[in-house]
Amino acid sequence: MKIVVGIDIGGTKTKLGLVCKDGSILSEANFPTTDYPLIDDFILQLSKSIKNLLKEEHELIGIGIGAPNASSKNGTIENAANLNWKGIVPVIEKLKAYFNITIKIMNDASAAALGEKIFGGAKDMNDFMTITLGTGLGGGVVANGQLIDGYDGFAGELGHIDITLGDGRLTGLDIKGGLEAYVSVTGIKRTVFHMLCKYTEDSILRNYSYKELNGEIIYKAALEKDFIALKTYHYTGKILGGALANFVAFTQPQAIFLTGGLLKSGVLLLEPTRKYLEKNLLQVYKGKVKLLESSLMDKNPAILGAASLIWSKN
Amino acid sequence: MKIVVGIDIGGTKTKLGLVCKDGSILSEANFPTTDYPLIDDFILQLSKSIKNLLKEEHELIGIGIGAPNASSKNGTIENAANLNWKGIVPVIEKLKAYFNITIKIMNDASAAALGEKIFGGAKDMNDFMTITLGTGLGGGVVANGQLIDGYDGFAGELGHIDITLGDGRLTGLDIKGGLEAYVSVTGIKRTVFHMLCKYTEDSILRNYSYKELNGEIIYKAALEKDFIALKTYHYTGKILGGALANFVAFTQPQAIFLTGGLLKSGVLLLEPTRKYLEKNLLQVYKGKVKLLESSLMDKNPAILGAASLIWSKN
Repeated sequence: MKIVVGIDIGGTKTKLGLVCKDGSILSEANFPTTDYPLIDDFILQLSKSIKNLLKEEHELIGIGIGAPNASSKNGTIENAANLNWKGIVPVIEKLKAYFNITIKIMNDASAAALGEKIFGGAKDMNDFMTITLGTGLGGGVVANGQLIDGYDGFAGELGHIDITLGDGRLTGLDIKGGLEAYVSVTGIKRTVFHMLCKYTEDSILRNYSYKELNGEIIYKAALEKDFIALKTYHYTGKILGGALANFVAFTQPQAIFLTGGLLKSGVLLLEPTRKYLEKNLLQVYKGKVKLLESSLMDKNPAILGAASLIWSKN
Repeated sequence: MKIVVGIDIGGTKTKLGLVCKDGSILSEANFPTTDYPLIDDFILQLSKSIKNLLKEEHELIGIGIGAPNASSKNGTIENAANLNWKGIVPVIEKLKAYFNITIKIMNDASAAALGEKIFGGAKDMNDFMTITLGTGLGGGVVANGQLIDGYDGFAGELGHIDITLGDGRLTGLDIKGGLEAYVSVTGIKRTVFHMLCKYTEDSILRNYSYKELNGEIIYKAALEKDFIALKTYHYTGKILGGALANFVAFTQPQAIFLTGGLLKSGVLLLEPTRKYLEKNLLQVYKGKVKLLESSLMDKNPAILGAASLIWSKN
């Protein structure tokens, strides 16, 4: 049975799974990325995890990897803000020492977009975008039916687009006013503190330190109609909607898929985002852009996205 | 001899020319767009102008048209801010009544980008952008070696991207903070008035009304080291450089070509733009994006761009 390994290298965890051509995941594993500060140790552990998953009946045809700051063209991870390995890491070359088959790597959000096209809701779409809203914000752009790689494979770093004329919050890569400083799990936490500063209303969120606060606490507060939490979601959706309206002017996508941890908040985020997207769209785009949750949300979108790097060519 | 007609429909003038496969222009003509407030009269005049250019030895293989707010997929011009014809105008269908051959239409900036790929400095590039800086600001995006059309052919409307969190100057299409309200021949004029308001230094530009002022006056003042004019170019380049740095995050172009009337100011605009582009680029992009003047600037880029819609397929 032909099989692909899909790998999602994240700042805290590395997840992997065996993926069939129809997008079903046969088995999965994961281990802490942070346990391996040296890249060679990490690659050794990764190769062991892959071998543990494989059984005799599997014919491994390729390995796909999604990772932050990955270059699809160079086969590398370069200067990642949220990983231990600094500089330029030749991931494919190193993993090839263990598996002499096709190995591909890509920006995690680009992989998510490709996954949506191969296994998800974008099967019949030629022009769409995927925005991942996790610790940061990532973008994957499909146009003319193809994933846009960029000159050396770094297209889609939409979290670091400045939305404020250079006068806003800093991102982890030191971009002033960068979108992910507002719209991500980290961004929404920062916004809570902005709102706690701006307003005087009482709020359950006044009981948490910055280090204690997390997305789930904010979400629960909003469900209880907490004033600060509701303001925070509205503000986040307003900024995301406005930014997405700008994004549409580039490649005029038919749909924008949202995915990632922040989406657990559901309509709390989607409703204002949809409103401000439509409001800010240029006339020629109005009514033509769907805002959708990724159809892979309840599966494992990162592993499926990574596996699609191989399955899209087979 | 095989020949293509390239047509540039502009707010004031419509230009056309006979273009050979090598990009040479055999003959040209133009007439005022504004003389024909009814689209059928305009199409009739256009067909006459084309027939006047054609000689017996020419074998017409197609007509390419560049126009503002054109949809390549629908064959239309839709809700153009700077043209008399309102609503949706089926340009290709109407011109087909006179010429039953291949006719293509495209956003003028997208046509300029394709012209750069077929006839200009982007022949060997797969990933680049063209920004046209005229009355407004337009964008054409080439990625993976293909022009990006968008879902129904309206990709690249970069002049209406909001760069100010919804709190800036209005564009002609009512977008608050839209880039072309700052960076275009119109935008630089508006900036002069901002600077005349902000500073108290004397300036030759204090002698002109808003209606009298034009790009040439500003350019000449800058050459004379006029304080307000120099501030204006610096401000414009700073905003354009910052915006281009954002644009790079989408498709990671290898080069950005600039063209249009505002480019007559040469280094006055290019120098600050280049500086702030490089300064604002995300680390992974630094040193990898060339900022270039279009190599078709001294030819007729709009006619060549329009003709490339046909020659790119032949």
